[in-house]
Amino acid sequence: VLDGDALVTDPVRMEKYRRDRAEDPGAGMPLAVVRAGSTADVSAAVAWAARHRVVVVPRGAGTGLSGGASALDGCLVLSLERMRGLTIDLETRTAHVEPGVLNVELKRAAAEHGLWYPPDPSSYEICSIGGNLATNAGGLCCVKYGVTTDYVLGLEVVLADGRVVQLGGPRYKDVAGLPLTKLFVGSEGTLGVITRGILRLVPAQRRPATLVATFPTTADAVRAVLAITARMRPSMLELMDATSINAVEDMTRMGLDRSAGAMLVVQSDEPHAAAAEEMAVIETACTDNGATEVLATDDPDEGEAFVQARRSVIPAVEKHGRLLLEDVGVPLPRLGDLVTGVEQIAADTGTRVAVVAHAGDGNTHPLVVVDPTDPTSEERAMVAFDRIMRLAVSLGGTITGEHGVGRLKRPWLDAQLGDDVIELNRRVKRALDPDGILNPGIVD
Amino acid sequence: VLDGDALVTDPVRMEKYRRDRAEDPGAGMPLAVVRAGSTADVSAAVAWAARHRVVVVPRGAGTGLSGGASALDGCLVLSLERMRGLTIDLETRTAHVEPGVLNVELKRAAAEHGLWYPPDPSSYEICSIGGNLATNAGGLCCVKYGVTTDYVLGLEVVLADGRVVQLGGPRYKDVAGLPLTKLFVGSEGTLGVITRGILRLVPAQRRPATLVATFPTTADAVRAVLAITARMRPSMLELMDATSINAVEDMTRMGLDRSAGAMLVVQSDEPHAAAAEEMAVIETACTDNGATEVLATDDPDEGEAFVQARRSVIPAVEKHGRLLLEDVGVPLPRLGDLVTGVEQIAADTGTRVAVVAHAGDGNTHPLVVVDPTDPTSEERAMVAFDRIMRLAVSLGGTITGEHGVGRLKRPWLDAQLGDDVIELNRRVKRALDPDGILNPGIVD
Repeated sequence: VLDGDALVTDPVRMEKYRRDRAEDPGAGMPLAVVRAGSTADVSAAVAWAARHRVVVVPRGAGTGLSGGASALDGCLVLSLERMRGLTIDLETRTAHVEPGVLNVELKRAAAEHGLWYPPDPSSYEICSIGGNLATNAGGLCCVKYGVTTDYVLGLEVVLADGRVVQLGGPRYKDVAGLPLTKLFVGSEGTLGVITRGILRLVPAQRRPATLVATFPTTADAVRAVLAITARMRPSMLELMDATSINAVEDMTRMGLDRSAGAMLVVQSDEPHAAAAEEMAVIETACTDNGATEVLATDDPDEGEAFVQARRSVIPAVEKHGRLLLEDVGVPLPRLGDLVTGVEQIAADTGTRVAVVAHAGDGNTHPLVVVDPTDPTSEERAMVAFDRIMRLAVSLGGTITGEHGVGRLKRPWLDAQLGDDVIELNRRVKRALDPDGILNPGIVD
Repeated sequence: VLDGDALVTDPVRMEKYRRDRAEDPGAGMPLAVVRAGSTADVSAAVAWAARHRVVVVPRGAGTGLSGGASALDGCLVLSLERMRGLTIDLETRTAHVEPGVLNVELKRAAAEHGLWYPPDPSSYEICSIGGNLATNAGGLCCVKYGVTTDYVLGLEVVLADGRVVQLGGPRYKDVAGLPLTKLFVGSEGTLGVITRGILRLVPAQRRPATLVATFPTTADAVRAVLAITARMRPSMLELMDATSINAVEDMTRMGLDRSAGAMLVVQSDEPHAAAAEEMAVIETACTDNGATEVLATDDPDEGEAFVQARRSVIPAVEKHGRLLLEDVGVPLPRLGDLVTGVEQIAADTGTRVAVVAHAGDGNTHPLVVVDPTDPTSEERAMVAFDRIMRLAVSLGGTITGEHGVGRLKRPWLDAQLGDDVIELNRRVKRALDPDGILNPGIVD
C-alpha cells in the first residue's frame, strides 16, 4: 500500500538514512527505508517487520546526537519526516503534531496565536518533534520551563505488533490507568513509534533581558551560577568555556573576549520591574564571583545575538575535527567538580575538549574533538569520552541529560543505572516489544 | 525486625486501616497492618508478602477518594504514615520527602526558604505526599502549574520482590534509560511502593488577586470559563454549582448568594500590572457571559476565604448523605456538555448531585449524594454514578482526572481506555509484578 516514493531500497538513496548527526561510524546497512506518510503506513511497516522479525529503526529529522537512529544491518529504517500535520487548538491550548514537524515550525504556529511551546534544543530550527518526543529533548529554557515530557498530554503510538493506540488526550489531568503516555516520552523508539503528539502550549514568553558576563576561569563562572540559582530562577543560564568562546569567535567574528576563561549568558523573562530585580541579582552574583566584564541589555536582538553564539558552539567546534558529543549532567552543587574534572581529563589525555553547558540545570556538553591531522587522536578522544561519563556518574549524575542514550552511550548505561534498574528497563522493554524488533541496543 | 508498634494484627486496631476516604463498603479484612518506619521495613514487608504470595495494599494518609487503599481480605496493609523524613535542598531547589509527609508540611517547609511546591489537592492539609505521588494528584493550581508528576525528579521504589531501586535524582534533565520515574507516578501502588521522592520546588507564588462571580446558570459560568482560558491562563479557575454553594453556605454562613446558579472563583498571581490586566480580562469574560455579581479583591485573606469555601464543598455536601465522588474530566470545549449532562442525569435519576470543578482544566467533581433517609436512593445514585462516567468518556474525557482509579472506578476503566490500552496496562503490570501481589484490581 506504500506509494512509490515511500519505499527506498536503492543503496545510494538509503545512504542519508543510515546515520543521524552523531555520525556513528558503526552504522549498518538497512534492508530498506520506509518514508511513512501516515499512521497507517507506520502501522503497516511495523506489522510487516514484526511478521518477518526485521528490526525497525525509527528516525525523525536525523539531528540526534547519540546515534539513536543509527541503522543496523538488515533493518528497516522508518522515517517519519513526511508526517507533517500540525494544528493548534486554541480552546484547549494544545498543539496536535505529527512527528515530522520541526520544533521551530511548532513554535511559529503557536506564536501566531500568542502561545508558546517552550522546549528549545539548540537544534530547534532543524530538529523534529518526533525526535524531541523520542528523546525527551531539553534545551536552553528548561532551567525555568522544564523538558519535553512536561508538555506532553497525549500520544498516538504504533506498538511493536503494528497496533495503533491513543494515550492521554487534550486534558491537563488524566490518571486513568498507568501513565503510559509518559512512558513513551524519552523511550527512543524502543517501545513503540510515536505518530502523533498532543502538546500543552503556554502564553507567549515575555521578551527577555540578557546579561553576558566573562570570567577568568570556569570555576569562577560556576560559582556565579550557583549564586544565581540559589536566589532566583533565570529563564536561561548558559556557560561557554574558553575553547567554545574561541571556536565561535573564529566562525562569527562577533567580538567575543578571546582571553576569557568562561562566559555566562543569562536571561530573565519576568515582567519589567521583576526582571530588573532579577538582573540586579544576576549582576551581583557575577561581579561577586570575579566577572571581568558584564554586559546587560534589554534589547532582545542584542540578547539573541549572544544566545545565537551559544547555539553555534557545536558547529563552530566541529570545524576543528569530528566531535564525540557528551551530554553529562550532575546535581548543581557538583557542577564545579564536573567542569574542572573535564578540564583535567582533557589535559591528561592531551585532547581538545570544549565545554558548553546548560549550566542552570547542571547539564553540560563537553565536546571531545578528534583531531583529523593526528592518527592517535581518536583513541585518546575515546579515553576522554569514557572518563567524562564515568566522572559524571561518580558525581551522582547522568550520562545523558537530553540527547538520549542511543547506540553510542549504551556501553555506559549500566554504570549509571546499576543492575536492578537495567533489569527493570529490560522487563518493560520485553513487555512491550517481546521480539525485540524496535530499535534494539539502547535499553536492552 | 519490625518493632512492636509496627505490626498490627488486632482486628479493632486494624479497622481504621481498612478504608480510605472513599469509605468503600466492600473493603476486606487484612491479615495484618505493617506500619513501616523505614525503607528497610517496606522492603522486608514486601519481600515477606512476595514469598508467601500475600497481596499488599499500600496506603498513605488514607484520604484517597477512589478506594485505592481499600483493604482486600487476607491482604497485608502497608501503611507509610510513619515515614516522615523531609529535607529541603536549597542548592538543587528540591525537596527530599518520605511518603508520610503531608502535602501541607512540604509546602510549609519550602515556604520557609521562599520556595513553593505547587500541587494542591483540596485535601492538602491532611493528604500525604506518598498518596499524591501514587495518584499523580492535582488540585486547584494545576490549570497554571501542572500536576504532581511535573514536579517529580526522582523516586526510591520498593519493587514487588522487595528490592529497592533509585530512579532519577535531583537533576532537571536525565534521559538515561526508560523514563521509569514517571511510570511510577500515578501507578497507585500497583507497580511498586514509593518510599522517597525528590521533588522540584519553584519560587514562592506571588500573592494572588481573586475574582468571584455568580451566574444564573452553570452554562453561563462555563461560557465565561472558556472566554477566560481562550485569552489567558489564570492561576486558579474553580466552579461551584447551586447545590455546592448552598451546602457550603449551610455550613459556613459566610454570605454566599443562595440564589446563584453557579459561582466562579478565579485567581491571577501575575505581578502587579500584569495581574490588573488579567483581572480585567476575567471581569469582562464574566460580565459578557451574564454574571449577576462580580467581586474582585487584592486582599489575599478575603480571596482565601472564597478558596476555602471552594475547598469545603466535599465536607459540606457530605452532610446530606454518603457521597459517590466523581472525578470526571473532559477537553475544555466539552465542559458545558459535561456539566449540563450531569444536571440532566441528576434530574433523570432523581438524585442530588453537587458539581464542583477545577473548571480551568476541565476536571469536575460531581458529588452524587446517597440520601440516608431513602432506601431507594443508593441504587439511583449508582445509576447516576455510572452514567456520569459514561458521559465523560463519550465526550472524549476521562473517568478520573486526579483521584485515581482505585477499586471503585475500575469497572469503568475499559470503556475509557479500550481493549488495546487495557492490555498494555496489564503487560506493564505483569512485567513489574508477575505474581500480582501489589494492589491488585486497579489496572489489572
